[in-house]
Amino acid sequence: MKELEERIRKEGTVKPGNVLKVDAFLNHQCDVALFDQMGQAWAEHFAGKQIDKILTIEASGIGIACCAARHFNNVPVVFAKKAQSINLDGDQYSTSIYSFTKQREFPVIVAKKFLNPGERVLIIDDFLANGKALRGLLDICQHAEVEVVGIGIAIEKGFQGGGDDLRAEGYDVDSLAIVESMDPESGTIVFR
Amino acid sequence: MKELEERIRKEGTVKPGNVLKVDAFLNHQCDVALFDQMGQAWAEHFAGKQIDKILTIEASGIGIACCAARHFNNVPVVFAKKAQSINLDGDQYSTSIYSFTKQREFPVIVAKKFLNPGERVLIIDDFLANGKALRGLLDICQHAEVEVVGIGIAIEKGFQGGGDDLRAEGYDVDSLAIVESMDPESGTIVFR
Repeated sequence: MKELEERIRKEGTVKPGNVLKVDAFLNHQCDVALFDQMGQAWAEHFAGKQIDKILTIEASGIGIACCAARHFNNVPVVFAKKAQSINLDGDQYSTSIYSFTKQREFPVIVAKKFLNPGERVLIIDDFLANGKALRGLLDICQHAEVEVVGIGIAIEKGFQGGGDDLRAEGYDVDSLAIVESMDPESGTIVFR
Repeated sequence: MKELEERIRKEGTVKPGNVLKVDAFLNHQCDVALFDQMGQAWAEHFAGKQIDKILTIEASGIGIACCAARHFNNVPVVFAKKAQSINLDGDQYSTSIYSFTKQREFPVIVAKKFLNPGERVLIIDDFLANGKALRGLLDICQHAEVEVVGIGIAIEKGFQGGGDDLRAEGYDVDSLAIVESMDPESGTIVFR
């Protein structure tokens, strides 16, 4: 998506350690007009597919998913919550996600009542790198016996391989900007 | 706001310890059509006031603020982040908020570059009870030297007094539903 690539080029910052900072418009300050365009782009890509629910993960996915939902007949948005600990009371699906940024595993939960067997789910998130967070959401979807219709991602770091692995497994991953390479010294970003 | 009160009555659950669970439509599963109506209601209340930015706090405030921003000319939404620790590198405003749910203080930060002196800010959040979270956001606003034009809240627990204290101090607090009392045994909820 041209608008997103332009914003990344203009306002994104490449930091050492494969970090792309886009907090000016995506995940600290949010440009909701851009989010709306992103939702429209996903709606075009997934047109004709029945989607009952959007699933995302806190915190950065929530704004994007809520703006996107307008373009999917206002379906409910469910966000997975980062929990203090895995609660085994039986009311929640839980999984564990390794965070590269935080260098540790953290538990993530979704209340069972918000994912019903057979529902058709679109997963939306801001970033896809190695795919650890998405694997956690897919794990929850599998336990919930919902069907993952597709995965909408704002920025994929293509060189980290998580997206291509998911595509090879048959998932319909629609990333609006795929960074093929980036250089912290020159600040250069090359898109796929 | 009638629609919100109806949803609280229909889908909210009163739990012991002054807890009102509204995770079916507000803070775990999100009804974006309702969020849109809420944004419209705030836009009517704050009509005629110049608003440059919306400030909220992760996680539950984000979806509501992003949907509301459409009704405020798509102004940027900035969400305060819950941090692992207070980082004193000088690039961030930070404060500490006591969480009743988690029974502990946690640090909250906003990057300085996203709040500029003199900007006119609308604060939006899902809940207002004793006002601890809002006090943290107001503290950040004071440090940033921005002007708080108003505070838009989805559900205020009126009996906990935080909203009335803020009103007495001159803040324009627009809560779309104010719970005057609620009873965990009967499940009864009385609105102001």
